[in-house]
Amino acid sequence: MTSLPATPLLDTVHIPADLKAIEDRDLPQLAREVRDEMIDAVSQTGGHLGAGLGVVELTIAIHKVFDTPDDRLIFDVGHQCYPHKILTGRRDRIRTLRQEGGLSGFTKRAESEYDAFGAAHSSTSISAGLGMAVASDLSGADRKVIAIIGDGAMSAGMAYEALNNAGALDARLIVILNDNDMSIAPPTGAMSAYLARLASGRTYMGFRDFGKKLTAYLGKTIDRAVTRAVEHARGYVTGGTMFEEMGFYHIGPIDGHSFDHLLPVLRNVRDNAKGPVLIHVVTQKGKGYAPAEAAADKYHGVNKFDVITGAQAKAKPNAPAYTAVFGEALVQEARLDDKIVGITAAMPSGTGIDKLQEVFPERTFDVGIAEQHAVTFAAGLATEGYKPFCALYSTFLQRGYDQVVHDVAIQGLPVRFPIDRAGVVGADGPTHAGSFDTTFLAALPGFVVMAASDEAELKHMVRTAAAYDDGPISFRYPRGEGIGVQMPERGEILEIGKGRIVKEGTKVALLSFGTRLAECLLAAEDLDAAGLSTTVADARFAKPLDHDMIRRLAREHAVLITIEEGSVGGFGSHVLQFLAGEGLLDGGLKVRQMVLPDLWIDQAKPEVMYAAAGLDAPGIVKTVFDALGQKGLGFGTMG
Amino acid sequence: MTSLPATPLLDTVHIPADLKAIEDRDLPQLAREVRDEMIDAVSQTGGHLGAGLGVVELTIAIHKVFDTPDDRLIFDVGHQCYPHKILTGRRDRIRTLRQEGGLSGFTKRAESEYDAFGAAHSSTSISAGLGMAVASDLSGADRKVIAIIGDGAMSAGMAYEALNNAGALDARLIVILNDNDMSIAPPTGAMSAYLARLASGRTYMGFRDFGKKLTAYLGKTIDRAVTRAVEHARGYVTGGTMFEEMGFYHIGPIDGHSFDHLLPVLRNVRDNAKGPVLIHVVTQKGKGYAPAEAAADKYHGVNKFDVITGAQAKAKPNAPAYTAVFGEALVQEARLDDKIVGITAAMPSGTGIDKLQEVFPERTFDVGIAEQHAVTFAAGLATEGYKPFCALYSTFLQRGYDQVVHDVAIQGLPVRFPIDRAGVVGADGPTHAGSFDTTFLAALPGFVVMAASDEAELKHMVRTAAAYDDGPISFRYPRGEGIGVQMPERGEILEIGKGRIVKEGTKVALLSFGTRLAECLLAAEDLDAAGLSTTVADARFAKPLDHDMIRRLAREHAVLITIEEGSVGGFGSHVLQFLAGEGLLDGGLKVRQMVLPDLWIDQAKPEVMYAAAGLDAPGIVKTVFDALGQKGLGFGTMG
Repeated sequence: MTSLPATPLLDTVHIPADLKAIEDRDLPQLAREVRDEMIDAVSQTGGHLGAGLGVVELTIAIHKVFDTPDDRLIFDVGHQCYPHKILTGRRDRIRTLRQEGGLSGFTKRAESEYDAFGAAHSSTSISAGLGMAVASDLSGADRKVIAIIGDGAMSAGMAYEALNNAGALDARLIVILNDNDMSIAPPTGAMSAYLARLASGRTYMGFRDFGKKLTAYLGKTIDRAVTRAVEHARGYVTGGTMFEEMGFYHIGPIDGHSFDHLLPVLRNVRDNAKGPVLIHVVTQKGKGYAPAEAAADKYHGVNKFDVITGAQAKAKPNAPAYTAVFGEALVQEARLDDKIVGITAAMPSGTGIDKLQEVFPERTFDVGIAEQHAVTFAAGLATEGYKPFCALYSTFLQRGYDQVVHDVAIQGLPVRFPIDRAGVVGADGPTHAGSFDTTFLAALPGFVVMAASDEAELKHMVRTAAAYDDGPISFRYPRGEGIGVQMPERGEILEIGKGRIVKEGTKVALLSFGTRLAECLLAAEDLDAAGLSTTVADARFAKPLDHDMIRRLAREHAVLITIEEGSVGGFGSHVLQFLAGEGLLDGGLKVRQMVLPDLWIDQAKPEVMYAAAGLDAPGIVKTVFDALGQKGLGFGTMG
Repeated sequence: MTSLPATPLLDTVHIPADLKAIEDRDLPQLAREVRDEMIDAVSQTGGHLGAGLGVVELTIAIHKVFDTPDDRLIFDVGHQCYPHKILTGRRDRIRTLRQEGGLSGFTKRAESEYDAFGAAHSSTSISAGLGMAVASDLSGADRKVIAIIGDGAMSAGMAYEALNNAGALDARLIVILNDNDMSIAPPTGAMSAYLARLASGRTYMGFRDFGKKLTAYLGKTIDRAVTRAVEHARGYVTGGTMFEEMGFYHIGPIDGHSFDHLLPVLRNVRDNAKGPVLIHVVTQKGKGYAPAEAAADKYHGVNKFDVITGAQAKAKPNAPAYTAVFGEALVQEARLDDKIVGITAAMPSGTGIDKLQEVFPERTFDVGIAEQHAVTFAAGLATEGYKPFCALYSTFLQRGYDQVVHDVAIQGLPVRFPIDRAGVVGADGPTHAGSFDTTFLAALPGFVVMAASDEAELKHMVRTAAAYDDGPISFRYPRGEGIGVQMPERGEILEIGKGRIVKEGTKVALLSFGTRLAECLLAAEDLDAAGLSTTVADARFAKPLDHDMIRRLAREHAVLITIEEGSVGGFGSHVLQFLAGEGLLDGGLKVRQMVLPDLWIDQAKPEVMYAAAGLDAPGIVKTVFDALGQKGLGFGTMG
């Protein structure tokens, strides 16, 4: 860590307008200070480090050259927005990043007028920026719109759709391609290789002084014919680049850590660009912090760490993480069945598919940030008798929903969907919550929809999915650790559509789908103590439902509560539809459906979020008492 | 229409293997016969005509050169698969296309082993084909996989994701880009312009004899370095094409109506290609049928027609179509509010956005087949105070689901979603059914979700959406004609979250969401006649629910039936959750939830499909009687 100079420039910058008072030559000092501030803050909070370190100079240069917030600046994904937050009036809260009540880890419109568009999922920035640019044109404003997108995000079809449309509309949009050859994992795909070719041999390496020269050549106007001729003469570009074919004026690659490159190019584009421009900027993830530069993942996401050594705090786990259990169980099954293949979309370690990749690299496919393709690619493999496990986070599966419906479900193809990050996810907040998958999957005819109640159940479900070949099947599980149950040597094949009674009672039935089962068991202790003998059941399946078990629960209890870590429309709704259709509600059964509340829940620790949502043992007990018209006071512990 | 020759070759072709016996020189005759057969069939059934006419030679050439079904042939979208169906054992049923119990209008795996992958939505073929190609490699097979994709489908990000992945995997996949400069509407976007450049001036127009020459140059091997040198020398390609940058070997453009071009290229690729190959084929939509060639839409989708004149049968409408009502109401509002803009994804006439385009072209955006981008582009416009109406079919909105969640709903942006083709859609079958939108939208916090019960209500909802600026809002309506109600001069602004009682009764309550309202009123007549005084309510909103009205219905009736043209998890599930939570089910109310059945419904007339689903007046009456434990016999007409 560099020691701070005597007069911190950063203390003079409260909002971007304050940058006007800083000379260009002093910006490197400001960059060092922003970097140090960011490293110090993230060392205390944990969060995304490498991405932000890579764009310190770029962020400063943009705010220096453009007139934010009137000019619109959009960060794709938002991992890299911490320097931006430091420079836009949020330095005093930067040590609350990702904490309950603190700053979001992403850009967020509600947080600042400088956050022109909220992000967290990848590859949305060009579309949003194009909307803003078109709005500027329609309203006769002379607003500049700048979208910063990483090279990894360029693998998503959405980015291509937006480029395609922007090129056709000829809108005044500035896209900055931040090429650091890394998204979270090393990027895959032909586009990545293409960018690497652009940024290496024939272009970037020989032209470190390109920024200055470009300006010299261009003067004050950007004339395509002239600059193309110049570029050709210099051997800079051998043909039209893909971006030029898409209708963009293409500048770069330039050095994203050099203000001498950034400032003249940005000023020239600001003053002269009339149509869509793509500036290809090469940066280094983790730049300026030696431990990050040296790490394979460039400290993409870190825990709290020691600034001097870079050593990250590691919480000692009490139980294996669900992700690891999935990955290991998949490898175990894959050893026994060579038709099993694994697919993920730029999340090999996040989903545990990396474990399969280590053992069976030829049977593992990381398709890049491309969920739509991932799903239909899996469908293609399934038509040929392979057993694809298409492992995505719940929130990212939304990207492939039409493909799940149209290419998998309608054709009844046996694609397996392991769904990680089900339910709330903690520090990443509402953009990453896995709230809707049960709702949008269980609506599909022929789908088998499971949720694991603990890590042993997850292992059973991996094997069950491997063995099930009659159609699509999914199983969801949360982020984080299991609960420490005894693990089987190998998973068992569960009977499709059969739940299990975990605890027998007579008065109250708690029917759980997913890992709220543990809270149900805690609640049952309190309820039993209060004289309300309680049955606890693990549904395992939202589809097909265990009709026999649900009938029994309905007929033999006065109260039936469903509970799940998902939205309305999912498991509980399927149960209520069944109960209504069977007439099981006609006789006065008190049924209640516990789901995630109908609001976007900000980041906090998951247990805090579930408690606030009432989806914990006290919340369950209260729901039962309310249903019975009893006051809870005096009954049990209530937490 | 050409008169058939004395000996129809087509009579000798029952399956593609029979093509082996036909000489190359006789294939043009076969093509004429296939074309005539197809024109005759579609003149009787209606359906997609222009697309199939454009690929007759291509389809024959592929089946002649490759060994289907062992080699896999995938048609993107499937509009163009009728010639393929004629050649693959389904000629005898070709006059049942799109009819109840007949052939699907698309490829369908369940229908034929020659349909390697079902389609109907666009741009899936490369992903599916890549899965099959990878499977072939993994299993050591020497199978060829051919995906045929139109130029319009290339605007979808999914196609790009697949190209990107295929280029990186270096899989043995053959992509045939069928470039007819038309999808349904003229295509938009930079890619389309790029393809036009490829196919015009510097390439195709001067090289009609390209196929032969290519073969002469290439001999029996494809050597990239050599052929590139040749191409450069001929001025054929001035730089790497985009497809080459993506890792594909790129051949073409070639004439897709010339067997002299098609056969040698396909044979060469079959025998020599080792990695991904893209063959750019130029065809003419509607080829060989003068009325289609002359029409602006090339007879994309037609009614029954007269073969000689091309005149299409037109059913005389009884009432305005919902799509037209929407388009006109939008124009009416747009005249009064210059912030209203319209967005669609390659469906201007299908969604009625073409009416806005005629009047306000600068405020109308057809982004191409790019639903993901369409949604986030709309979100960007909304951040700037514009009022975007993002008009999609229900089934295609699935493509933009994550964008609806992440870019619109979480940020609470007031994007308006007119949702056409809600419910079953008739001849297009299950791939186009609008079954899930209420389920996947109403789960989202802060969303307003409406359904129009008739065409006047639709007009109210257009105005309501225009006036509502507090967050996202959607309104769904079916394909086809309204019911002929009196139309207001202008729509009224509906109170958000308020339904309406259409008919008062005392015993039974029918609570409808959408156009089943008319069936509810018919059912109510029968029920009243049977002594069961019936209330009928139009919910208008699935979210927010009209709590007061629902409470009243629940408290004042013995039976409450919800009914909608959608899946479980939607309107009815929200009602049941509310009723359960309020304790309104505890007292013995008989509640039933009528939704689309849990299966994929094959094509038929919509009224037939709804009757089979029980979602008509007799089905409603039966549900009421069942709930009351009464036999329906002797009560009313029962339809």
